[in-house]
Amino acid sequence: MKSIKFKNKKLFYLDQTKLPGQEVWKSCKTIKSGWKAIKELRVRGAPLIGVFAAYSICVHLDKCSDKKAIFFNQFKKALDYLKSARPTAVNLFWALDRLDKAVSENKDKTVKQIKEIIIKEAKLIHREDISTCEKLADFGAALIKNNENILTHCNTGFLATSGQGTALGVIFKTKQQGKNPTVYIDETRPLLQGARLTAWELSKKKIKSFLITDNSAAFLMQNKMIDSIIVGADRIAASGDTANKIGTYNLAVLADYHNIPFYVAAPQSTFDLSLQKGEDIVIEKRDGVEVKKVLGGDFICPAETKALNFAFDLTPSGLITAIITDKGVIYPPYKKNIKRLIKW
Amino acid sequence: MKSIKFKNKKLFYLDQTKLPGQEVWKSCKTIKSGWKAIKELRVRGAPLIGVFAAYSICVHLDKCSDKKAIFFNQFKKALDYLKSARPTAVNLFWALDRLDKAVSENKDKTVKQIKEIIIKEAKLIHREDISTCEKLADFGAALIKNNENILTHCNTGFLATSGQGTALGVIFKTKQQGKNPTVYIDETRPLLQGARLTAWELSKKKIKSFLITDNSAAFLMQNKMIDSIIVGADRIAASGDTANKIGTYNLAVLADYHNIPFYVAAPQSTFDLSLQKGEDIVIEKRDGVEVKKVLGGDFICPAETKALNFAFDLTPSGLITAIITDKGVIYPPYKKNIKRLIKW
Repeated sequence: MKSIKFKNKKLFYLDQTKLPGQEVWKSCKTIKSGWKAIKELRVRGAPLIGVFAAYSICVHLDKCSDKKAIFFNQFKKALDYLKSARPTAVNLFWALDRLDKAVSENKDKTVKQIKEIIIKEAKLIHREDISTCEKLADFGAALIKNNENILTHCNTGFLATSGQGTALGVIFKTKQQGKNPTVYIDETRPLLQGARLTAWELSKKKIKSFLITDNSAAFLMQNKMIDSIIVGADRIAASGDTANKIGTYNLAVLADYHNIPFYVAAPQSTFDLSLQKGEDIVIEKRDGVEVKKVLGGDFICPAETKALNFAFDLTPSGLITAIITDKGVIYPPYKKNIKRLIKW
Repeated sequence: MKSIKFKNKKLFYLDQTKLPGQEVWKSCKTIKSGWKAIKELRVRGAPLIGVFAAYSICVHLDKCSDKKAIFFNQFKKALDYLKSARPTAVNLFWALDRLDKAVSENKDKTVKQIKEIIIKEAKLIHREDISTCEKLADFGAALIKNNENILTHCNTGFLATSGQGTALGVIFKTKQQGKNPTVYIDETRPLLQGARLTAWELSKKKIKSFLITDNSAAFLMQNKMIDSIIVGADRIAASGDTANKIGTYNLAVLADYHNIPFYVAAPQSTFDLSLQKGEDIVIEKRDGVEVKKVLGGDFICPAETKALNFAFDLTPSGLITAIITDKGVIYPPYKKNIKRLIKW
């Protein structure tokens, strides 16, 4: 199960806005089409955005000069351009900064050599993301019991990473381990990543699952239908405060009230230790039309109605039972334990 | 602003499934079409269902026998039939029981006279609902300060009652009083009564409002954008436990966590003192297809995905700051104070 491919310097992606109705693979030939694919959520999911952005630089290299000074300038501009596609998921910045670092460390080589190094580094980021998912899933699955009823939000599987996923990767692993999970899927308005993508992944993996409206989760918890909640993350501050898809904070408050474990699953690259606390994270505000129209259909409200569309929210670390990473499971006190485990 | 009309023994209703795109008035000529209109949510809102069901009996009377024994049998069957349309909103049962009582008290009169009495009682229920809304709005508006930011859920205005509404009626009243409210509207999945109906009513009344996804409410509360929450109710037990549109309990937990007043607004007819506590209330479970398709459009998930569709949830009275009724505002301890104020 893959959502992007890079072969012979050519980049392809599964257009996630067309799912689950159609499985359409598209070619990404320019940095502009890479930027657009991220901006329009055709490629999404914090870890996947990082890998895809790195490859978007790769497809741009042939258009860059072979004169070093000009090349460095073009490369820097390309990094900044891609970073402007989405503000919240840190993995985008992390992956591009890795390319930047690889270039800095090899700045005395020829441009031709440097271009090869960039491609090598992008492929390494990709391979690492796949193995990161594996490690994270192993650590996470150890927290899940047999026949557990797990609630999840948005999409965090093989469509959100280049591996098997973060939160959903943990669930896939419990299935492989014969633990027989049942998954309740928040549809995740406005863009319905839960309904469109997570339900599709769980169907492909033949895992028992039920789609619910986001506002039903509380009722299910009240009726003891949920044993644990696992979500992904777009950026985690040094304090453990976590930015993730809008609706995550709601679930965290509900989990606290109902005394249900609330897990965040994210690779090391999702941590941003330059930020002390959640309030420092930029929350992307998107066009209200995504709320006013469901998947581009007719207006669901009067045309003149104003809609607010915050794409993410902030969950304070105090509401998080544990953060599942590829380096291990992090428990409170987060500030100390994140500092000890996460390094990049 | 009206949502049903009864004139010269003819019943008409605004088809709410067509809003906000089209304002389509339909004629209800038979009890079967009345039942269907309620079942399919063409006429909805707990108080409005009660009034409309009473009138649905009225349009049925000409088809009933003038022989008393046969008439009583037909009348009883008609009541039971309409009661089967929806299980949770008690106002439906309350209004039909009022007709039943009026008939019982006049059983010695001629069938012709009894039929006139039924029509008179239905019109009385209608008039009372209008004045009930007025009284409730007066009591509720006194709780709201100038420039308050109010969150509401589902639809509780002139489309949900035959008057100006319950929760929304309170908001309309604060506008009339010059208090300048700002309303945040939960879109209210799956059937989007907030987006389709509440946004439409607020637009008609020129009240400043913003549509949000249901999963955004927590983020707004965290960011101190909400001063109070007002919702309606479909049934309130003797304990004050309240059944209302799915998502209400979620808001109540969030309000508790963020220390925001959480008000339920409902007329006396919404109380069901025969039930001691919320767990005794029947929660309507509707077809999962309402979740899987938004307003009858294409599937938002794989066709094979199973969806859960609980139409209502239960809010324990401990999470309710006050219940606003046409008899006054009820504060805890609810059991005692409801018993003192509510009588029917």
